Amino acid sequence: MREIFESELKQVGDDLAEMSRLVESAISRAGTALLTADLQLAQSVIADDHAIDQIERHLDERCVLLLAQQQPVATDLRVVVSALRMSATLERMGDLARHVAQVARGRYPSKAIAPAAEHTFAAMHDAATRVARRTTTLLTTRDLTVAANIERDDDLLDALHQDTFAALLGESWDGTAQETIDITLVGRYYERFGDHGVSIARRVVYLVTGDFAEASAIRSV
Amino acid sequence: MREIFESELKQVGDDLAEMSRLVESAISRAGTALLTADLQLAQSVIADDHAIDQIERHLDERCVLLLAQQQPVATDLRVVVSALRMSATLERMGDLARHVAQVARGRYPSKAIAPAAEHTFAAMHDAATRVARRTTTLLTTRDLTVAANIERDDDLLDALHQDTFAALLGESWDGTAQETIDITLVGRYYERFGDHGVSIARRVVYLVTGDFAEASAIRSV
Repeated sequence: MREIFESELKQVGDDLAEMSRLVESAISRAGTALLTADLQLAQSVIADDHAIDQIERHLDERCVLLLAQQQPVATDLRVVVSALRMSATLERMGDLARHVAQVARGRYPSKAIAPAAEHTFAAMHDAATRVARRTTTLLTTRDLTVAANIERDDDLLDALHQDTFAALLGESWDGTAQETIDITLVGRYYERFGDHGVSIARRVVYLVTGDFAEASAIRSV
Repeated sequence: MREIFESELKQVGDDLAEMSRLVESAISRAGTALLTADLQLAQSVIADDHAIDQIERHLDERCVLLLAQQQPVATDLRVVVSALRMSATLERMGDLARHVAQVARGRYPSKAIAPAAEHTFAAMHDAATRVARRTTTLLTTRDLTVAANIERDDDLLDALHQDTFAALLGESWDGTAQETIDITLVGRYYERFGDHGVSIARRVVYLVTGDFAEASAIRSV
């Protein structure tokens, strides 16, 4: 029984890591598509999102079967319940990458992001891509210093998000309503992407340390 | 054992209904605060959000204990896992109501929504409030016709969301960047609120019918 459980649990962990790798690829390509008005790249992100959704469904079915057939308790149970939640979060991160790509596609052949905000969105792209890459690393290594770095990138995304509003509300802003809308929405997508990364980081910290307070305080690691 | 399980499961259902009632109150007050620039009402929504978060935590702990101590299978297991997911969704709906209230508070004493879009946001407010009220009804009665009505209100929210963009991109739009930002963000909050209502509706349909295809097709009920 135990061997089957361990093997099933390993598969759950592998699925989460695979989802995270796909999210990493999606957010990275979506940001490049956004910044360079690359229609083909944007379309590839949109088309590939179903693969993330599919792993989520398989992973969830596997977790429910695990609960029914293996009836885990204590730490094992916590791992399975956390996996259910992290898969939902990763699925949502994939959706946000798709939303960024949809904005890029919608404005093609123009760039969606007005020149005045390009620098800020390039930094958001970098930070979000790091969040995704670190999420994959965290899920595969459970190295808690990586969790702290995800929190730091999320702080950076929040600050950059504020910068986008400062740009839109500054006296020199003379963009169109469409440009204002796009900056507002894409900024929000990146900001949420960071939040979701932090949600996963805290769940992993909680799984490793068993301590919710510590999970909320990894910023200070 | 079975009696304890039934009693615990009833408590989980009661907690979900209570969360939904609080969400209903929050989104209703947030919309009124937004449309009438009512600072006190906006602040009450923001202050009350923690109560929703608190029920979510208790509910989740109860579900994990239920899984560990009662080791449910089949339908019982499906009910507990669905409750975990629905509580996360209701918590998020509470956050979105809080975000609407925060925009209202941020623009006080002005109204956040420019006059040209007020009519559309009054309709979004009505539709979102109906979604929340119907979610409470669905969770307490499991009447599937209510689920179909939630889908219809979500369709309406999507259409109204498109109307906001049409207004912002129309020739007659002469609002400030702040007004464009607020309409873009609040429109997005309402649109997501409807999506979450549909997510709960489909979970309940799935629990009642055991059929995912039916759950996705309740629009045609």
